[in-house]
Amino acid sequence: MKRLLLVFFALAFHFVVFSQEALWHTQQIKSPEVNENNSVTFRFYAPNAETVQLTGDFLPRIKKEVPGFGTHELPGVVDLIKNEDGVWSYTSSVLADELYSYSFIVDGLTALDPNNVFLVRDVRSLTNLFLIDGPQSKLYRVNNVAHGSVIKQWYYSDRLQLNRRLTVYTPPGYNQSNYDYPVLYLLHGMGGDEEAWMTLGRASQILDNLIAEGKAEPMLVVMPNGNVSQEAAPGESSLGFSQPNTNLPKTMEGSMEESFLDIVTFIENNYRVKKEKKSRAIAGLSMGGFHSLHISKEYPDMFNYVGLFSAAIFPREGANSPVYSNIEEKLKVQFDSNPSVYWIAIGKTDFLYEANKNYRSYLDEKKYSYTYYESEGGHTWRNWRIYLSKFIPMLFK
Amino acid sequence: MKRLLLVFFALAFHFVVFSQEALWHTQQIKSPEVNENNSVTFRFYAPNAETVQLTGDFLPRIKKEVPGFGTHELPGVVDLIKNEDGVWSYTSSVLADELYSYSFIVDGLTALDPNNVFLVRDVRSLTNLFLIDGPQSKLYRVNNVAHGSVIKQWYYSDRLQLNRRLTVYTPPGYNQSNYDYPVLYLLHGMGGDEEAWMTLGRASQILDNLIAEGKAEPMLVVMPNGNVSQEAAPGESSLGFSQPNTNLPKTMEGSMEESFLDIVTFIENNYRVKKEKKSRAIAGLSMGGFHSLHISKEYPDMFNYVGLFSAAIFPREGANSPVYSNIEEKLKVQFDSNPSVYWIAIGKTDFLYEANKNYRSYLDEKKYSYTYYESEGGHTWRNWRIYLSKFIPMLFK
Repeated sequence: MKRLLLVFFALAFHFVVFSQEALWHTQQIKSPEVNENNSVTFRFYAPNAETVQLTGDFLPRIKKEVPGFGTHELPGVVDLIKNEDGVWSYTSSVLADELYSYSFIVDGLTALDPNNVFLVRDVRSLTNLFLIDGPQSKLYRVNNVAHGSVIKQWYYSDRLQLNRRLTVYTPPGYNQSNYDYPVLYLLHGMGGDEEAWMTLGRASQILDNLIAEGKAEPMLVVMPNGNVSQEAAPGESSLGFSQPNTNLPKTMEGSMEESFLDIVTFIENNYRVKKEKKSRAIAGLSMGGFHSLHISKEYPDMFNYVGLFSAAIFPREGANSPVYSNIEEKLKVQFDSNPSVYWIAIGKTDFLYEANKNYRSYLDEKKYSYTYYESEGGHTWRNWRIYLSKFIPMLFK
Repeated sequence: MKRLLLVFFALAFHFVVFSQEALWHTQQIKSPEVNENNSVTFRFYAPNAETVQLTGDFLPRIKKEVPGFGTHELPGVVDLIKNEDGVWSYTSSVLADELYSYSFIVDGLTALDPNNVFLVRDVRSLTNLFLIDGPQSKLYRVNNVAHGSVIKQWYYSDRLQLNRRLTVYTPPGYNQSNYDYPVLYLLHGMGGDEEAWMTLGRASQILDNLIAEGKAEPMLVVMPNGNVSQEAAPGESSLGFSQPNTNLPKTMEGSMEESFLDIVTFIENNYRVKKEKKSRAIAGLSMGGFHSLHISKEYPDMFNYVGLFSAAIFPREGANSPVYSNIEEKLKVQFDSNPSVYWIAIGKTDFLYEANKNYRSYLDEKKYSYTYYESEGGHTWRNWRIYLSKFIPMLFK
């Protein structure tokens, strides 16, 4: 017995070591390394490269003139320096607590960090992740608290005639209790899907942590796919491993709003939730804020809490769904029914700032009651995580 | 209204285009491209590189002498050829239907395919994925059939004093029915975690598809984490984004077997499952096969179906848990209670082939009843997906 066992361990060791070191050519280099003062050192082994650069959302942005599009802000790019061992490195300035993403550019080509297995996909870009600890980013960490469950759930949409996937967060204790919970419907932006709020938005961590701190009511969070022609996120549908593209799937032309009741009905028939206005909330970012605005005005008796995060406001030109007719009358009905919270949040440099300002002027003029939160920065996941962590504690009180 | 809308769309387009093209330097190149005859063309844009190579599990393996370890088989490596546009390419031979993984080696450094967002992590290696359609790999695709749910579920292990995560698959219809379901406990190998059977093993797709074809009973599948010192997979625990390493976490020393009842108890208290031997199965690959062997013999009244996929058989030297004492007596009790299926599967070139052969000789000598399945190939996910798809239809009949 013992001899056979030793063979197993020697071979297992062998397998692990060679699969790591030789087969896939990764190196035993620490990158990224968060230093004591919260600067971060990035390292990349490339003895023969001519240039190694780094780009990431923590670097100062660069203004660049783009023909036909005016001035555009692009993430900064910095150069790494090579040492005698062929390891290139760069140490950032001291960073605020946040979840950051980055990638390398080696001789002009994007490369992921071979020493960091943590990645996130945004539309069709993959970037590496790291987190700087602190009071805000603590909400984005998995902490040693009770954890809710995250469910990849399929439903059938009658109105769209399609099997579609959504993500459901159920709070800690959901399985053990007999309690009916309130529900937040949380919608993604253009290019996102039913995974975006979990991966880029850290929604389950934010919920777990706010509930553990007693700052949020235990609630379900339902994250549907807002691209109504899609079954599910790329790689998760019957399209197989076909690459996501930048064609916008059927969005913002009314069918998300028109088919939304299929989602609410499915959730209320399949999960233990409260089926009443005061226990329903809807919020979303960018296109999802647009969907939240129009769904909540379309069904004025359905949602007591509405959150518009960096929202698009106005319907697409040529979008002639009945959802976009009589907007003013529908808003009047909605606001006359006094939603408890109608929250508008946007960053000072967001390209939708003016559209939101005009919408607020309209609401002010009509004396419709809403709450406004203005942050620094623009149209970024950093802001949307902050908005979610501020919105959640207002719900279901 | 319309003017503001146009601004939104122009900017959204702008954002998408520039985030793709300029910020992250990806290229509009098709890679991998599955050709009509099921050969595959791989492309990589690198005008200044000196060599671009490809490694993947579909290339003929190379025998290599490794000092101290004897002859070892490594995945093959092939050279790509550069065209005048700086695009390197390679076309494979015609491939059998299967899920494959690959990565590039550019001037000696591993690079993922920037034109393929689909990746899988195995321990600390990331590789790109593609699928060749066919009768077996059809089971690994998301097809247009009813889909079960996949739940990231936490439980508290009393015996380990730890909050831990596991994955639960519930079959289509679980939410709507009042039926109690049978359960398969499905265990991963060394270096894996509670995500491995879903990502590398395609377990939810295999279950959905076999259930849709009427070849499998609707069942729950519970995939725990067999590294008992871990809360959860890398990046999903309170350790944060610390990189997985090749140190083996507390495994194969008895504590997985000793704490397994915490998992069964949690599942039976929190999910609608049948609580009887004839409705419980356990199976696993490699280390998970070892766990399945020892858990099922330790609790001879618990599992009516046992699957050992490329299993390690014998306890680790120095593992002195009571789980590994009186093995022969315990096996006698288990086999005397006549499990319906005791299934042993292994590939002809697996390094555990001899250990399994010896174990079968022992079972033969004792006239214990089991079923044996021998495949081509070795210790690979390709085999484990095949074994799962053959094991599932035998359960709960």
